Amino acid sequence: MGDDIAARLTLGEGHTPIVSAGSDLEGVALKLEFVFPTLSFKDRGAVVLIASAVERGARRVVADSSGNAGSAIAAYAARAGLECQVFVPAAISARKRAQILAYGASLECVAGDRTAAAEAAIAAVARTGATYASHIYNPYFLQGTKTFAFELWEQLGRGVPDAVIVPAGNGTLALGAARGFSELQAAGLIERVPALIALQSECCAPLAQAWTMGSREPVDVEVTPTSAEGIAIPRPARGAQILAAVAHSGGCVVSVPEVAIEPAQRDLAARGLFVEPTAALVWAGLLIARHHPAVRGIAVESEGWTVARALTRGNVAVPLCGSGLK
Amino acid sequence: MGDDIAARLTLGEGHTPIVSAGSDLEGVALKLEFVFPTLSFKDRGAVVLIASAVERGARRVVADSSGNAGSAIAAYAARAGLECQVFVPAAISARKRAQILAYGASLECVAGDRTAAAEAAIAAVARTGATYASHIYNPYFLQGTKTFAFELWEQLGRGVPDAVIVPAGNGTLALGAARGFSELQAAGLIERVPALIALQSECCAPLAQAWTMGSREPVDVEVTPTSAEGIAIPRPARGAQILAAVAHSGGCVVSVPEVAIEPAQRDLAARGLFVEPTAALVWAGLLIARHHPAVRGIAVESEGWTVARALTRGNVAVPLCGSGLK
Repeated sequence: MGDDIAARLTLGEGHTPIVSAGSDLEGVALKLEFVFPTLSFKDRGAVVLIASAVERGARRVVADSSGNAGSAIAAYAARAGLECQVFVPAAISARKRAQILAYGASLECVAGDRTAAAEAAIAAVARTGATYASHIYNPYFLQGTKTFAFELWEQLGRGVPDAVIVPAGNGTLALGAARGFSELQAAGLIERVPALIALQSECCAPLAQAWTMGSREPVDVEVTPTSAEGIAIPRPARGAQILAAVAHSGGCVVSVPEVAIEPAQRDLAARGLFVEPTAALVWAGLLIARHHPAVRGIAVESEGWTVARALTRGNVAVPLCGSGLK
Repeated sequence: MGDDIAARLTLGEGHTPIVSAGSDLEGVALKLEFVFPTLSFKDRGAVVLIASAVERGARRVVADSSGNAGSAIAAYAARAGLECQVFVPAAISARKRAQILAYGASLECVAGDRTAAAEAAIAAVARTGATYASHIYNPYFLQGTKTFAFELWEQLGRGVPDAVIVPAGNGTLALGAARGFSELQAAGLIERVPALIALQSECCAPLAQAWTMGSREPVDVEVTPTSAEGIAIPRPARGAQILAAVAHSGGCVVSVPEVAIEPAQRDLAARGLFVEPTAALVWAGLLIARHHPAVRGIAVESEGWTVARALTRGNVAVPLCGSGLK
């Protein structure tokens, strides 16, 4: 990729802080994946995605998103001077909509779930000939998100934790992290990859249910509303790949009760960190796995949770992927 | 300051990105001072302020703020396990109020301007014996904000620009930057300090009017509403110090027309950066000084602006201090 394109597009994204959770949670490191120019980790992927689009001569890009990827793609498209159209589910937060519009993108609110927004975007691409700047299908996006793994390795003194807890909707962080850790291993820099503990909301858990059933493909699920809108993906296009990556890492996929999100968000705020519900769900997973008092009385029992509890006894890294102001 | 306190409190604040503005604005570097754990540069000062409070045995802190400093102090107070009470003008944005509350602080909305909020905070300190965590009077805050200057020097290859444009309300960045540049000069690392171009809103310009009149003290002004709420300070406590620092640097203080804020905010968004109005005002100042088409037709004429235009012909750094989601 041309160095001049990268230099022109970058907003200095990445190198996010890593901090200890506190003395009550020995061995837990938080990586502040919301300390980004557009306030979410999606900037890691968006800058590479848009740079590749520019290099291939794109003039107009179309994206679909539950909000954060749409903001990131809109921001870098603006910086690149590309027209940008973003399709989102109509139900996403008003702030996420405002942010996408702020970058000058045109915003299309689609009735229905996240998959309906994707279908509308694909139809628009077919109709107009614009470039499909998909953070799910386009492999360049994961080439950006894999830097999460590289940074973690650097920040932990050229090492990796025993486990990494990741949100799992379309899996842009899970798959990016898996790829990054595999590359570190292939380069002889780490002996084994960390176990990935992938979390879904109990309200939309096609991967967690597949994991429980031993299916290699996401299963059809009934969806109910969740505040963790960033991972409410009923039919994840790369679902089989996510399940395979988690299995390869020795991890597990579990679902988190909706009722755990709010206490987890409060617990994080008391540690000085204000994050959006999707990020708080990931923290809820850690608190549940560690039997933390903040989630006392919230019951989860499954083979996956037994594995998650065992895996989180050692050193764990937890990314917090979106700001509370989102 | 105890290393253990710093290690426990830090959220990895600082080392914010620096990026070029674009090919239409040669020599202009943007420093993204909103890419912070609480989404504003105030984290630089808050972490040092709260660490010093902890070291001196504080249990409860009181602060007053137009929003961003209050959020930062509330976040680090939460992390330190201190009770925190924040006094704000009732008119600040709902998001800023929500953010302060999210960190578990108690929020007191005071009728009147920013000075009324400060007076209410000082009265509460006198009444309760809590520690006054003031980002204006407490010198530790500026010990934190001075790191802005050190980072700039590092990021520009051990050098400084000809001029730095800073917002000027209570002057926490202006005074911190001035101190940092002076320390670099005293250490023999730079030959001369950059000229500080301090910007106020035309709706609340006690320092800009003092500058024009040749007064060494801020003057009494009539205040009208401005969207740049972060610098709407009618009677800045350190006003004389700000005026002296600007004069010492060879810079100037000018006021920016309210009508320039929105075009500047749009211009920045087209560069991939979504910031709050106070930060957009600073960008408006640069655009006006550089005769940029985005602010064509917006008239400013004064001796200060003549100086600002001359100073910004060379290399200029512009901090963008608060996220657009604030």
